[in-house]
Amino acid sequence: MLKNIMDYDTVALDDDLGALVIVDQTKLPGVVEVLALTEQEDIHRAIRTLKVRGAPAIGVAAAIGIYLAAKKSAEREYESFYREFRAAREYLASSRPTAVNLFWALDRMERVVRGNSDAPVDMIKDMLHNEALNIMDEDVLVCRSIGEYGLGLIKDGDGILTHCNAGQLATVKYGTALAPIHVGRERGYNFRVFVDETRPLLQGARLSSLEMLADGVNTTLICDNMASQVMKNGWIQSVFVGSDRVAANGDACNKIGTSGVAIMARYYGIPFYVCAPTSTIDMSVERGEDIVIEERPPEEVTEMWYRERMAPQDVKVYNPAFDFADSELITCIITEYGKARPPYSESLRKIFDEREGCDGRKREGTK
Amino acid sequence: MLKNIMDYDTVALDDDLGALVIVDQTKLPGVVEVLALTEQEDIHRAIRTLKVRGAPAIGVAAAIGIYLAAKKSAEREYESFYREFRAAREYLASSRPTAVNLFWALDRMERVVRGNSDAPVDMIKDMLHNEALNIMDEDVLVCRSIGEYGLGLIKDGDGILTHCNAGQLATVKYGTALAPIHVGRERGYNFRVFVDETRPLLQGARLSSLEMLADGVNTTLICDNMASQVMKNGWIQSVFVGSDRVAANGDACNKIGTSGVAIMARYYGIPFYVCAPTSTIDMSVERGEDIVIEERPPEEVTEMWYRERMAPQDVKVYNPAFDFADSELITCIITEYGKARPPYSESLRKIFDEREGCDGRKREGTK
Repeated sequence: MLKNIMDYDTVALDDDLGALVIVDQTKLPGVVEVLALTEQEDIHRAIRTLKVRGAPAIGVAAAIGIYLAAKKSAEREYESFYREFRAAREYLASSRPTAVNLFWALDRMERVVRGNSDAPVDMIKDMLHNEALNIMDEDVLVCRSIGEYGLGLIKDGDGILTHCNAGQLATVKYGTALAPIHVGRERGYNFRVFVDETRPLLQGARLSSLEMLADGVNTTLICDNMASQVMKNGWIQSVFVGSDRVAANGDACNKIGTSGVAIMARYYGIPFYVCAPTSTIDMSVERGEDIVIEERPPEEVTEMWYRERMAPQDVKVYNPAFDFADSELITCIITEYGKARPPYSESLRKIFDEREGCDGRKREGTK
Repeated sequence: MLKNIMDYDTVALDDDLGALVIVDQTKLPGVVEVLALTEQEDIHRAIRTLKVRGAPAIGVAAAIGIYLAAKKSAEREYESFYREFRAAREYLASSRPTAVNLFWALDRMERVVRGNSDAPVDMIKDMLHNEALNIMDEDVLVCRSIGEYGLGLIKDGDGILTHCNAGQLATVKYGTALAPIHVGRERGYNFRVFVDETRPLLQGARLSSLEMLADGVNTTLICDNMASQVMKNGWIQSVFVGSDRVAANGDACNKIGTSGVAIMARYYGIPFYVCAPTSTIDMSVERGEDIVIEERPPEEVTEMWYRERMAPQDVKVYNPAFDFADSELITCIITEYGKARPPYSESLRKIFDEREGCDGRKREGTK
């Protein structure tokens, strides 16, 4: 019998192999292929080509990736070690532009290096190892907490719409948008989940459907353009999505199509919830318009997955990977520290300060 | 060199072959295959499987189809001829439920039979031949007129979003939603057209893109879930869609996804135009909720076009072929008799009465 997809690690560190271990998400749901990546080029490519994807999982993959780069370093002097670390960091940071967790995780790892410039390089490597594992372990706690807070917003039997995959396959465990459902399942709740297929790369059809079914959820797949009809039918009590970067004003950047779902939810009077760890909140970005939106190859739209090219040869294609839900459309943003309500410029600042406080205390405590 | 797709007949009658002639739209854009269908089963299947599609084109195909059925009849007596006609009519009417033009065209053909019960059967067959050709010829005039009225609402250089294909490939010539663009092109206008790919059957990617490029239009293909971002970018000055059935209150049923596009257009303050011949207006249906929405096979979503199945085996699928834009979201409904503005229950009634007047006069004139 096939192992349940929920029993695989989305992203993990194998110390014996010196490898980042992932399930290749481009092969799902047809094939479950576990990859052990030891080379920086392979890790970079895995992120760029979405073999590992989802903002939190990308962050963890980057942390493990930069640790592996540091571990391999032959440098013994801090300065040359740090130069090499910086180069590896720049390289991994160039893999994808939008999800802030990538930069957040690399920042955290870099802080370890810079904060210990007087330590022997080998000790810094050990600390990087620990920090990568911390980031990974914290992700589980963070997602679990988001799940608890989110679960408080829904009822047993609710119909829930989700877009893309912000589930366990996008994190270490539980997911963000799907965490309330997974946590609810642990308590015996039943939900009816509608999954947008999420063109062009079909993360909804391929990943969220698989993950929901694996957790025994009553799951219905729809094309993205059917969300309005499903809402009109009265089948949806709330919408849950993840985020790749939340601006200081609450604009929530997420998989392309999210803004449309938010607009439709508002039209039908359905609550629209964004689930985002504080690592996804970027207080340095004022508004959604200031977030860099990755544009990806036209072939994802015209050819990928198809038996044959499905569009005329000369047609132009616009293929943005993300958009953002205007903060005014968001009922609340669910973080591991609780729910932020409008006005977000205040509530996010408060949560962010709280996190900084916690992190600060923790950092002090572990010094 | 390849013949331009615009030079093919979408739907035509070949008297020598006794056949309905269509371009198989399921093969586009890769292959242009012309089919000559002589058997009722083949015509029924061609409509059901969308080899010919688009509300006006389905109407014309049904008119030609029922004429071909009548022509083949060996009956010499009116009563038995009419019974056979009725059976053929019921059969063709069962091919698809939503587009009202199918029933409208079959009604028109049946009126010819019933209005001439005292004529010899051979003469009725000739009259059916003429009526089928009338329906076909009128479609060109109707679409041309819609194009003129629609063109008055846009400016040279405008960005226009369209959903599905309501172009020449959905009619005899010009199309409905795309008629303003084709008529504008004849006058040397340039537009920038954004085409929703229109899952699951990709009529936008496959048909509208092809048709727009064939007419020299600056065309950009997007996935359905990118429409919001394109609107947010300020690239869209107006949205044009066709319709499969307009209710008396102005609710406009059209390809699944239309309601979402209408909601997004309202959110961004973009005019949303529905182009519909009066043959598409069904005054017997009060509201959109009363229109039968065809549900199609799950495999269209999970497998069709793909190299492999793109969803887990056990996932449920909801696959409605249509939804409707609430009348309150529609800026105006463009018919061949001019633009209907809200409140639609009044303006559509006025236009419908006008059509009945014209039809009445014409019918009297040709008696």
